[in-house]
Amino acid sequence: MKNGIETRLYVDSSLNTGEMFCLKQKQVHYLKNVLRLGAGDEVALFNGYDGEWRARILTVARQSVDLCILEQTRQQSYEPDVWLAFAPIKRDRINFTVQKATELGVMLLSPVITRYTIVQRVNVNRMRANVIEASEQSNRLTVPKVSELDNLTNLIDSWPIDRTMIVANETASTPIVEIIRMELDCSVKKIGFLIGPEGGFDKLELAILNKLPFAKHASLGKRLLCADTAALAVLAIWQALLCSSFHRHD
Amino acid sequence: MKNGIETRLYVDSSLNTGEMFCLKQKQVHYLKNVLRLGAGDEVALFNGYDGEWRARILTVARQSVDLCILEQTRQQSYEPDVWLAFAPIKRDRINFTVQKATELGVMLLSPVITRYTIVQRVNVNRMRANVIEASEQSNRLTVPKVSELDNLTNLIDSWPIDRTMIVANETASTPIVEIIRMELDCSVKKIGFLIGPEGGFDKLELAILNKLPFAKHASLGKRLLCADTAALAVLAIWQALLCSSFHRHD
Repeated sequence: MKNGIETRLYVDSSLNTGEMFCLKQKQVHYLKNVLRLGAGDEVALFNGYDGEWRARILTVARQSVDLCILEQTRQQSYEPDVWLAFAPIKRDRINFTVQKATELGVMLLSPVITRYTIVQRVNVNRMRANVIEASEQSNRLTVPKVSELDNLTNLIDSWPIDRTMIVANETASTPIVEIIRMELDCSVKKIGFLIGPEGGFDKLELAILNKLPFAKHASLGKRLLCADTAALAVLAIWQALLCSSFHRHD
Repeated sequence: MKNGIETRLYVDSSLNTGEMFCLKQKQVHYLKNVLRLGAGDEVALFNGYDGEWRARILTVARQSVDLCILEQTRQQSYEPDVWLAFAPIKRDRINFTVQKATELGVMLLSPVITRYTIVQRVNVNRMRANVIEASEQSNRLTVPKVSELDNLTNLIDSWPIDRTMIVANETASTPIVEIIRMELDCSVKKIGFLIGPEGGFDKLELAILNKLPFAKHASLGKRLLCADTAALAVLAIWQALLCSSFHRHD
């Protein structure tokens, strides 16, 4: 329990008062054997669109746990919409990136292969399990989506043109704070960050990225950051500037 | 090698053209067995105050490596001065925090025990080894200092009054971006962040922190962040705002 937040579980089902709900296998193990909860204990449930609900454990069987959904405790509310496309890195680093990006509010995680990407595979199922766990732990009411691994060309081709792509680009001169402020100023709040591999983008990729009408190129400063540090930095910076812009308009 | 940066080694010694330098045991192993460098190969050396120097490997023996220092390649330059005081967390997380804080330019890492700190010990020697490695990898010309573990009272008592302490405080209302901007506006560039444990600070601690003349309290927004996420977020935000303020004054 963190800061008194009760156990939170993501469920892929509608939530209504009085409904019974039967937990799936993995969550049964977690509840029974890890958290050691039993009949009478309460948990919080969320499904990504109905807010958060209080539920009571009715029965605990060998392979199932039945809950009764009691009442809504939080309404679904607006959550800012930011994507993160990133070149995959080693497994333990990916887990960490995925978890922290989820804490920082990402809505879509898009692993993307580029010319200098070293790691060529990701375990998308593991990433999806990690975002669920991170969403439960971080008190989110939504769970980020995780795309299948794809290459940069396809990422660009399928990128929605109403979403600004902010490319973390070592060759860019405009600091990221200014790029984000410009976006917030024109009320465009749909953005996505593209973080390349540690070798950067190659000349051809940069040429293509430079020509995209929906892309802006941002410098993260003089420091040499690991790709996973850069991924979290951009999300933290964006979060903080967004929060500050809301504060000023209250 | 990352982005074509050659092998960089931190050495605790003065650096001058023509000087011979003998590497210590740990670095000998790293050079010979991990990097497989030999006589004639070049490395970059830095000591935290003389900039960066090119050096050539002269001889490789069983337990020693001799280098000849050739010429200075980078001058020591101004590096912004930010501290990070943080409640310790589990070991793998600490390594990650230490590494990424180093990438993000921290000058001093201060592990601090508070009332709700769960982890009560840190391996300061390991932290010191990690900051050296992270400094070498991230192209820094300095290596952050790591303080011995201490408690919050002593941290506060020894805190220099000319350094603003920015406390990441869930009960604060001013967003961190505004707190940092106010600091940058009055040219006070000596700051330190204080990140509490995941249970937060207790009432007594908050009361003391609220009364400190050099402390400002900043909100990191509505999201619930792990302590290590918060630590990196504040450094990334500070870095980005600093970079943006330099850019505007060019």
